[in-house]
Amino acid sequence: MRVIGSTIWAIAEGYIPETSTGTAPEFTSHETACILNTSDDEARIEVLIYFSDREPAGPYHVTVAARRTLHLRFNDLADPEPVPRGTDYASVFVSNVAVVVQHTRLDSRQAENALMTTLAYAASS
Amino acid sequence: MRVIGSTIWAIAEGYIPETSTGTAPEFTSHETACILNTSDDEARIEVLIYFSDREPAGPYHVTVAARRTLHLRFNDLADPEPVPRGTDYASVFVSNVAVVVQHTRLDSRQAENALMTTLAYAASS
Amino acid sequence: MRVIGSTIWAIAEGYIPETSTGTAPEFTSHETACILNTSDDEARIEVLIYFSDREPAGPYHVTVAARRTLHLRFNDLADPEPVPRGTDYASVFVSNVAVVVQHTRLDSRQAENALMTTLAYAASS
Amino acid sequence: MRVIGSTIWAIAEGYIPETSTGTAPEFTSHETACILNTSDDEARIEVLIYFSDREPAGPYHVTVAARRTLHLRFNDLADPEPVPRGTDYASVFVSNVAVVVQHTRLDSRQAENALMTTLAYAASS
Repeated sequence: MRVIGSTIWAIAEGYIPETSTGTAPEFTSHETACILNTSDDEARIEVLIYFSDREPAGPYHVTVAARRTLHLRFNDLADPEPVPRGTDYASVFVSNVAVVVQHTRLDSRQAENALMTTLAYAASS
Repeated sequence: MRVIGSTIWAIAEGYIPETSTGTAPEFTSHETACILNTSDDEARIEVLIYFSDREPAGPYHVTVAARRTLHLRFNDLADPEPVPRGTDYASVFVSNVAVVVQHTRLDSRQAENALMTTLAYAASS
Repeated sequence: MRVIGSTIWAIAEGYIPETSTGTAPEFTSHETACILNTSDDEARIEVLIYFSDREPAGPYHVTVAARRTLHLRFNDLADPEPVPRGTDYASVFVSNVAVVVQHTRLDSRQAENALMTTLAYAASS
Repeated sequence: MRVIGSTIWAIAEGYIPETSTGTAPEFTSHETACILNTSDDEARIEVLIYFSDREPAGPYHVTVAARRTLHLRFNDLADPEPVPRGTDYASVFVSNVAVVVQHTRLDSRQAENALMTTLAYAASS
């Protein structure tokens, strides 16, 4: 299998709702970066989180094993600091090997969930 | 009509909810890869399903007739194995002719459906 | 303003729900191709509708005036034939000038609406 | 960090629902252009709003500081004129530095929200 994707991705939208309805973790309001690594090497990825009113946080270090997908919840990022809830942010991913990144949000602030997804922006690398 | 699309596509997001509300198959929770083949040749497509913790499954063999669209439900993939429910996955499509691929999920775990869609990632071919 | 977009676009997903809840036309289940023409010329667009089990329908003829957007409801296409409800389809747009196309569905089969949108696929032209 | 994105973006879909349910501003029906500026320079952006039946409005002037994201609500655009509610529109962004733009709508006309998002269209620049 040829390697698919780009080494640099950006997601301009980011917002983890502060509240949730339903059983955790399935129905917890969350934002996910779905990362696919089709290569035969582990993907070592640095994530930067951008805000509206302060310098970027990170880098966060994420790895995706060869021929694996990781659906990374921004809710789970902890080091160097958690991603604040109810706050506008954006994110950039820089990987050592080409990967594919897709962005999804599940918003369960209300009884019935809302979903949205989009391919992230692939910078030519 | 010129042929439109790419021969390699990837969808980094994948998750078939385990439960559904409403009449089947219309309101069954499902994930779909909508494939459009504008060419005058049958598209013969191999699909690989990637997971977070095991080697990829497949290839699955899918055909789309000339000048036809196929809205392929991942729920219906059976050979060599079904796609597990409630499990993170990703997918790659390799076709002999250029096609266009779009990803859609209908989540009917709750009384009111949620929908999301995105263009898949087209690898240059 | 420079002209933005592509002259060939494809949307692999297409499905107009058969039923609706709420007042028409605002809450009628519908699919829309949002077309933006930033050029100083009228865009003359031919639309083909692809199906899973028959030859494509069309061409449908659509025009978008210079420096205008048209949010075209597939529900409103009538000549040479309406787009059937509850049926999988896909679509291709060929324009004389570059335009931008985005796909949106409002599904009001249930009391609470679901929405989805994606950029269409731009073929290099 | 290298600069990521494009200097010209278009969003063909645009519609601010006229009504809302829930507490403002969190649950106010809105459309957002999420803009990410990874560069070390302030992004100065001109926005044009296109309509179906009149000449474009604008330019609106928006700035995004270096290494910041701005989640711009179209609802908040006021000068030279507000964006009308319940009206089809489209938008174009022209920036002095490369940025990334993603489009999101929260529709709260009904008790349970609907969400949609997509990457905007990046014109090669």
